[in-house]
Amino acid sequence: MIGNKGIGKIPYGGDWNPEQWEESEWMKDLELLPKAGIDILTVNVFGWAGLQRDDDLWDFSKLDRVMEAATAKGYRICLATGTAAHPAWMARKHPDILRVDIDGRKRKFGARHNSCPSSPTYRAYSVRLAAKLAERYGHRENLVAWHVSNEYYEACWCDACEAGFRRWLERKYGAIENVNRAWNAAFWGHTFYSFEDVVLPSHLSEEWGANRTIFQGMSLDWRRYNSDNILETFKAERDALKAVTPDVPVTTNLMGLYPWLDYRAWAREMDFISWDNYPSPDDPWTVTALRHAAMRGLKDGMPFALMEQTPSVTNWQPYNALKRPGVMRLLSYQAVANGSDTVMFFQMRRSRGACEKFHGAVIDHCGHGDTRVFREVAELGKELRALGAKTLGTRTKARCAVMFDWDTWWALMLTAGPTVDLDYPAEIHRYWAAFARANVACDVVFADSNLDGYEIVAAPCAYLMKPGMAERFEAFTRRGGAFLTTVLSGLADESDLVTDTGYPGPLRTLLGVWVEETDALPLSRSNGIAVESGALAGTWETKTLFDVIHLEGAEAIGRWTAEFYAGTPALTRNRFGAGEAWYVGGVVEQALADRLVSELAAARGIAPPIEPVEGVEVTERAGDGRAYLFALNHGSQPAELTLRFPAVSLLDGASYDASPDSPAALRLAPHDVAILERRGP
Amino acid sequence: MIGNKGIGKIPYGGDWNPEQWEESEWMKDLELLPKAGIDILTVNVFGWAGLQRDDDLWDFSKLDRVMEAATAKGYRICLATGTAAHPAWMARKHPDILRVDIDGRKRKFGARHNSCPSSPTYRAYSVRLAAKLAERYGHRENLVAWHVSNEYYEACWCDACEAGFRRWLERKYGAIENVNRAWNAAFWGHTFYSFEDVVLPSHLSEEWGANRTIFQGMSLDWRRYNSDNILETFKAERDALKAVTPDVPVTTNLMGLYPWLDYRAWAREMDFISWDNYPSPDDPWTVTALRHAAMRGLKDGMPFALMEQTPSVTNWQPYNALKRPGVMRLLSYQAVANGSDTVMFFQMRRSRGACEKFHGAVIDHCGHGDTRVFREVAELGKELRALGAKTLGTRTKARCAVMFDWDTWWALMLTAGPTVDLDYPAEIHRYWAAFARANVACDVVFADSNLDGYEIVAAPCAYLMKPGMAERFEAFTRRGGAFLTTVLSGLADESDLVTDTGYPGPLRTLLGVWVEETDALPLSRSNGIAVESGALAGTWETKTLFDVIHLEGAEAIGRWTAEFYAGTPALTRNRFGAGEAWYVGGVVEQALADRLVSELAAARGIAPPIEPVEGVEVTERAGDGRAYLFALNHGSQPAELTLRFPAVSLLDGASYDASPDSPAALRLAPHDVAILERRGP
Amino acid sequence: MIGNKGIGKIPYGGDWNPEQWEESEWMKDLELLPKAGIDILTVNVFGWAGLQRDDDLWDFSKLDRVMEAATAKGYRICLATGTAAHPAWMARKHPDILRVDIDGRKRKFGARHNSCPSSPTYRAYSVRLAAKLAERYGHRENLVAWHVSNEYYEACWCDACEAGFRRWLERKYGAIENVNRAWNAAFWGHTFYSFEDVVLPSHLSEEWGANRTIFQGMSLDWRRYNSDNILETFKAERDALKAVTPDVPVTTNLMGLYPWLDYRAWAREMDFISWDNYPSPDDPWTVTALRHAAMRGLKDGMPFALMEQTPSVTNWQPYNALKRPGVMRLLSYQAVANGSDTVMFFQMRRSRGACEKFHGAVIDHCGHGDTRVFREVAELGKELRALGAKTLGTRTKARCAVMFDWDTWWALMLTAGPTVDLDYPAEIHRYWAAFARANVACDVVFADSNLDGYEIVAAPCAYLMKPGMAERFEAFTRRGGAFLTTVLSGLADESDLVTDTGYPGPLRTLLGVWVEETDALPLSRSNGIAVESGALAGTWETKTLFDVIHLEGAEAIGRWTAEFYAGTPALTRNRFGAGEAWYVGGVVEQALADRLVSELAAARGIAPPIEPVEGVEVTERAGDGRAYLFALNHGSQPAELTLRFPAVSLLDGASYDASPDSPAALRLAPHDVAILERRGP
Repeated sequence: MIGNKGIGKIPYGGDWNPEQWEESEWMKDLELLPKAGIDILTVNVFGWAGLQRDDDLWDFSKLDRVMEAATAKGYRICLATGTAAHPAWMARKHPDILRVDIDGRKRKFGARHNSCPSSPTYRAYSVRLAAKLAERYGHRENLVAWHVSNEYYEACWCDACEAGFRRWLERKYGAIENVNRAWNAAFWGHTFYSFEDVVLPSHLSEEWGANRTIFQGMSLDWRRYNSDNILETFKAERDALKAVTPDVPVTTNLMGLYPWLDYRAWAREMDFISWDNYPSPDDPWTVTALRHAAMRGLKDGMPFALMEQTPSVTNWQPYNALKRPGVMRLLSYQAVANGSDTVMFFQMRRSRGACEKFHGAVIDHCGHGDTRVFREVAELGKELRALGAKTLGTRTKARCAVMFDWDTWWALMLTAGPTVDLDYPAEIHRYWAAFARANVACDVVFADSNLDGYEIVAAPCAYLMKPGMAERFEAFTRRGGAFLTTVLSGLADESDLVTDTGYPGPLRTLLGVWVEETDALPLSRSNGIAVESGALAGTWETKTLFDVIHLEGAEAIGRWTAEFYAGTPALTRNRFGAGEAWYVGGVVEQALADRLVSELAAARGIAPPIEPVEGVEVTERAGDGRAYLFALNHGSQPAELTLRFPAVSLLDGASYDASPDSPAALRLAPHDVAILERRGP
Repeated sequence: MIGNKGIGKIPYGGDWNPEQWEESEWMKDLELLPKAGIDILTVNVFGWAGLQRDDDLWDFSKLDRVMEAATAKGYRICLATGTAAHPAWMARKHPDILRVDIDGRKRKFGARHNSCPSSPTYRAYSVRLAAKLAERYGHRENLVAWHVSNEYYEACWCDACEAGFRRWLERKYGAIENVNRAWNAAFWGHTFYSFEDVVLPSHLSEEWGANRTIFQGMSLDWRRYNSDNILETFKAERDALKAVTPDVPVTTNLMGLYPWLDYRAWAREMDFISWDNYPSPDDPWTVTALRHAAMRGLKDGMPFALMEQTPSVTNWQPYNALKRPGVMRLLSYQAVANGSDTVMFFQMRRSRGACEKFHGAVIDHCGHGDTRVFREVAELGKELRALGAKTLGTRTKARCAVMFDWDTWWALMLTAGPTVDLDYPAEIHRYWAAFARANVACDVVFADSNLDGYEIVAAPCAYLMKPGMAERFEAFTRRGGAFLTTVLSGLADESDLVTDTGYPGPLRTLLGVWVEETDALPLSRSNGIAVESGALAGTWETKTLFDVIHLEGAEAIGRWTAEFYAGTPALTRNRFGAGEAWYVGGVVEQALADRLVSELAAARGIAPPIEPVEGVEVTERAGDGRAYLFALNHGSQPAELTLRFPAVSLLDGASYDASPDSPAALRLAPHDVAILERRGP
Repeated sequence: MIGNKGIGKIPYGGDWNPEQWEESEWMKDLELLPKAGIDILTVNVFGWAGLQRDDDLWDFSKLDRVMEAATAKGYRICLATGTAAHPAWMARKHPDILRVDIDGRKRKFGARHNSCPSSPTYRAYSVRLAAKLAERYGHRENLVAWHVSNEYYEACWCDACEAGFRRWLERKYGAIENVNRAWNAAFWGHTFYSFEDVVLPSHLSEEWGANRTIFQGMSLDWRRYNSDNILETFKAERDALKAVTPDVPVTTNLMGLYPWLDYRAWAREMDFISWDNYPSPDDPWTVTALRHAAMRGLKDGMPFALMEQTPSVTNWQPYNALKRPGVMRLLSYQAVANGSDTVMFFQMRRSRGACEKFHGAVIDHCGHGDTRVFREVAELGKELRALGAKTLGTRTKARCAVMFDWDTWWALMLTAGPTVDLDYPAEIHRYWAAFARANVACDVVFADSNLDGYEIVAAPCAYLMKPGMAERFEAFTRRGGAFLTTVLSGLADESDLVTDTGYPGPLRTLLGVWVEETDALPLSRSNGIAVESGALAGTWETKTLFDVIHLEGAEAIGRWTAEFYAGTPALTRNRFGAGEAWYVGGVVEQALADRLVSELAAARGIAPPIEPVEGVEVTERAGDGRAYLFALNHGSQPAELTLRFPAVSLLDGASYDASPDSPAALRLAPHDVAILERRGP
């Protein structure tokens, strides 16, 4: 991890871009930042143009001076390879390095993420730069991590990438007949007789608009290939670094639930996960928490690095609302509460020009520290120093999990029908948030995750069934687990060919239902799911999709209240082995997801460490016999929690001599945070 | 017609795409479908790639087996030429076959309708394929029709099409000076000195956005040329088929009121009309009925074929709402009621992959017939078998007509001013629906139609006046007809040059009015048309356009209630010869159109066979002394109609011994249908 | 000026395009127009294609006949060079003349403004045409002005323009290092090592969407270069004309506040300003008045020419609402009231074809004058003849000014953050309209204007601070002026590099405030500015942006009512020398701007000549001892003004023997106008 060189506390710092200033300004920053407790700097993120001035003209002198100055002041360094934007001269001399966009337009030099991942120039020069950096700076004591490129992004549609796609298909499918079968290519007369017949799906061929396509299978494979292809460029740089500095961990900063890259596949190649957290001011806290949990899940629970967040405003949001007093601290602790072992910012000092000139920074344009933002950063810096290493390396212990899958996301994004309103991440959020709102720890797992440690697994809209997936769900349930899935699940195989065994295909046995057809209606029309008795009793509003279900062993817990299928099952439970499998035949209101999840947890004795209070997030990290509860008041009103175990509050030193029989009140001001070290069960 | 090989009943079936399945699956379909009464299959719609594997490599063996199997099971065959999508290898080897889009982008292989109509490769190979199919399968007894290509579509903007446009202009105009005059090319200095100066109107030249153009005349001629040019490809295939099988009728499936192709011109080249009916779930029944009537009108009343409809959902609609129970049957009979001699579906079996994987089918993905959809198809199949040949070949006898014209649609689509809200098909619908809602049979006629048989002709927004058109309207009225037209009529000649004789140009004498100017206001602002007395008495809401009218012989029936032209004429009638000519100077509410049309009909003694009931469509087909009334309840409530003639209800066998003096009640459940065979006047 | 050949009255006429008609029609127009008082014609606006038929084939015979006919009938001529659209053959033979669009697409022949400003063909041929016209027609007595091209427009992104951009940068910056510094090119690794590395910002490089860019500095310089580059084509034609006819004034018709061209720089090269006024029917009168004032300000108060307005409808508006009776007259006088010395129309006769076929004209399609529009034009013609030369050459005497700056507009348009809702022209309008609504004369000034004559200067959102600008504001205030500016001011230097001295940068001393940070919220959320006492007392709604302000010498006049900065200053005043500097820290409601401006004016004894009445515009023009007040009732209700000085009403001859002690009532019907010649103070 980024903290593995013995910093002994949560690393605190972030991106510093001295190349944007005269060298005379550097020392001002380096002397001011420690006053805010900053101890780690990410440098060289966009350094390529400054380091390589021509094919064989390299100049590291300025970066040498940056490293010297930062080292002299005692900073840890996260060193970027700087390959997220190639130099202007390189684009002019080697146009193969430029991307082609989805409209078939060769791009000119500009922006970032401007390099074609298949470009021989890019491959050769990016690796050479990484190697040179490793040789030159890899020996430094204060080098804590390699930061390869930056926020890898989107795709290229050039001829080289097209050729690469053909070779990727050849490796995957062997013979073109298999491609035809996987893509149902006979549809609309697309049968291919040679891999050379295949062209990239783009706005010149099969796709149009936003993710609309004629051939779902092809577009799905293209996204897989593209993710793999860009990953190759990461691996090439990583290998060059590892060849020189095998012990320095390598990462690249991810972007949460980002649609173009299958981060689960990427995670296997990274030493640790790092990511950049830029919530919209309107996001509920569960959205950000889910993203943290997903990043934590990428490496099966390993703590990650919060590589970037803004100290104040995010300039590319439509409205640059200031983070209110306390909110930067709150969101910093939220990251830690959900698995981060760092608190890092973009950026140390605000740029004076170009598109991020109004992005927030620790040091504002005015250049001094006498600002609200700097003071808040400094106060948090002091707290983190006091907190020390306590939380480092601890982990979330979850008995529940929600499954997320990039292939499924792609398939649902690309599908034509049954509705334009289905939003896969929103469905994942619906069920994950239900756990989070109940203060029940919940991991994000992936299609290949080991489910052994879990007691409840929800896989909403598990549309794309990879080989063995249904069997693993069955095994999980058989041994006593509670499995839950929803509308659209089980419909397609990994090529997006729809099941011919009746919906939900391979999940039909597990769920004990046959879905005959699925109605789809606009958001203006809803239906109800009526549950007559029990914990779920009531009528629950449901929208967008409505399954017509036949019971094949399952029992109907809820039934539709309207339309021609009124009275037929809408929500079902199937006893399966020692466990049970739930099916939700529509897009339900949050309250039903909340209730359902709470009941499943309660039935398994999964109790929250602290009873839920609206707007207050509660998580726990533990390890080596230590356990820390985080309580975060995301609301703008004071909140009061009930403690039923003895604890010490680390940030204010308060002691709570509580027990189940003699609870204590923990009061949190708006946006305030408590970290409680357990002193007992 | 499609039924001319003595099937003795309404053909019932549709598209079957066995190439998407292993051959082992074929027999399952062929054995299951007869259980639903299916007796006709459309095959090879996208077969090209499967038949031609290289320039000189043809392989018909699979299609042979398809034909053999279907024939063995007794199906009639509608055989498609399969040329709506060219093979992938052909695009790679012969790039001239690929289209260029309106943005000037050469497309790559993908989608369908991907062939340039001017491409020598396309022309040669599509004709060769048609010829080979005719030679191979044309002798078969069960071949009932040729289905050329599929849903011809849009346009190509390549250099070859541009060159073709120049030659087309040369043929039409002779000298470039005539082009300059027709297009008013002196505007913005566009005078051409040579046909070679002309470029296609595209997003690189005169057009932008959706149908916005600098040169209306050029853009209009381009659309005419494009329709003609694509029609040439149809004709070439048709001729190749006819050379071998002169007696097998040839069609291609149209798409209702489709903007890119002038179907009236196409109809002249087709043996019979067939079309694909995919209403939106929200379309009122009159929209679908109008489309049927337009298709029937294309060949002056000849019955047509409903080539495609969905048995359940249309996957490319934003919301794939299930067709409610009974609705598939209702819409099937609506087609027959309005002139169809077939009931056919897209498709027999649901695709497992690609963009139509969720499009409805007779056989669902599950592969068996134990579904609501299959059962409804089977029930209708049983009814159609019982109905037999009775309705085949009968025709609608209409004394009223509404005129639709593709040139006018294009011109109004392309015009800049006076409003963005005028929707030509909506205005056609407004007046046609007024007849339909009154249960008065109404044809759709075209600019070249013979008006002799009609007593009322409405030509709403007859903007583009072709040579002789005004004279024909005058002759129609003079001999006693009631002519009605509306705002924007008469303004332009066939080149879209505005009249210089005062609006409404050549209709000024007939209508007896001079329109001085036309006000245009946003939808948020309306005006009233006040009619003081008589059948139209009241104040009628009017929007979008408001003519300032001077009477020149006509009388003012209604007058504006607001704006500076308050009190001036808004709705006028002019006695002309033995008839009368009405002018509606705005976009009026449906209720006024309804009232106006009803009064015109009543005055001419055109009575509905059954009095109108809201939501119930009533039509009649007759021939050879037989007459059939269709009553279709499109509403979700039961309806009761009053019969005043003796009849037998064909679907349930009930007898109605009714007469004008002793009426009988015909009750229709929601979505139910009755077909009444008249037993008296 | 356009009237400098002794026409002795306000020239009245406009565009006449006889090339669109047979010559036999010309004389009809020329005989009809004088009946409407028309005495000036603009001809040859799109004449190029008619004059040059090939590289060396010129034919002026038709234009000769046009000139002869118009001259014979006594018309003044404004002669256009006709270079706003090149001939079709030229595009075919010399493709370098075609533009490339922002998406990198080479355009084909079509539309207008289709010539690349860098094209050698365009440069050579447009100048040659201008020279030929000057030689052929320059001697004519009735030639009153040259009208170069027409509504210069947008930009070209071709390789030649790219090369020109590089040379322009080289001239401006000398060394590439200076470019890097100005653009902060180290950001995202854009450091350039050679001017040849620079590519135009386009949708293929740094820009996307509408004015979104990665590099603000580059995109800003590109807009400056483009404006300069197109200006070069104007200058080249102008010089060719001047070489032959040094005394004939040269203009081109501008388009109000048009984003692509820096009209202030253009004005320096034009002999007089002319512009085309096409308000939307929904624009408040202050919007049009502001545009007139801006055009007047371009040459520091010199009267301008209203070159175009529509007599009735503007066809490219979404809704072609008719100008209500009286409105054409009202808007004509509004132009004069705000500084125009002409009243001219587009167009004399309505085109029969192409995209402006429905644009209004003096003579409608019907070809005669018996129309409402013609009659209104004729009535105004009669009035203008009676008015004679009185108002010609008089000027607006303003003691107040609002500053507008194209560079600032560009910078704010291009910026990423702090809000998408800031609309610079709307902020200019807010404060200018406050003066206009108070009947206080207010000029529009520019960044280089002389401020000596003013007592109040408002520079809203003065974001981009050019060298010396702050010093000039300080000098203005020090000598007693009232300076007012608002949120976002002072933030950036002329390269859009943000100040590093604390916001508002160079204005910090003058304003006596430090803005620590700026909050940005969506339009759904507002804050209040509370003023406790005095003329501004009240709570004023404020949106979009909210400054957090520290006083550094200024006093807080108003304070925020909500958010974490509630109670901190929002509206401040700083005594500075003999004057005062106001700062408005947000986007305020119009009522606060109105109140503030009124108070500033009252405090300086700047009284309106007539007290304000809602909906009535009052302006004054004076010169050579004469003074004319214009009162224009833009409302649809009668209005009554109070006169406190003796005057004669020129349009109706009424005398008002009013004085401060014995006021008189001036009544204005809806849309009516009065011009009062002062007969006393």
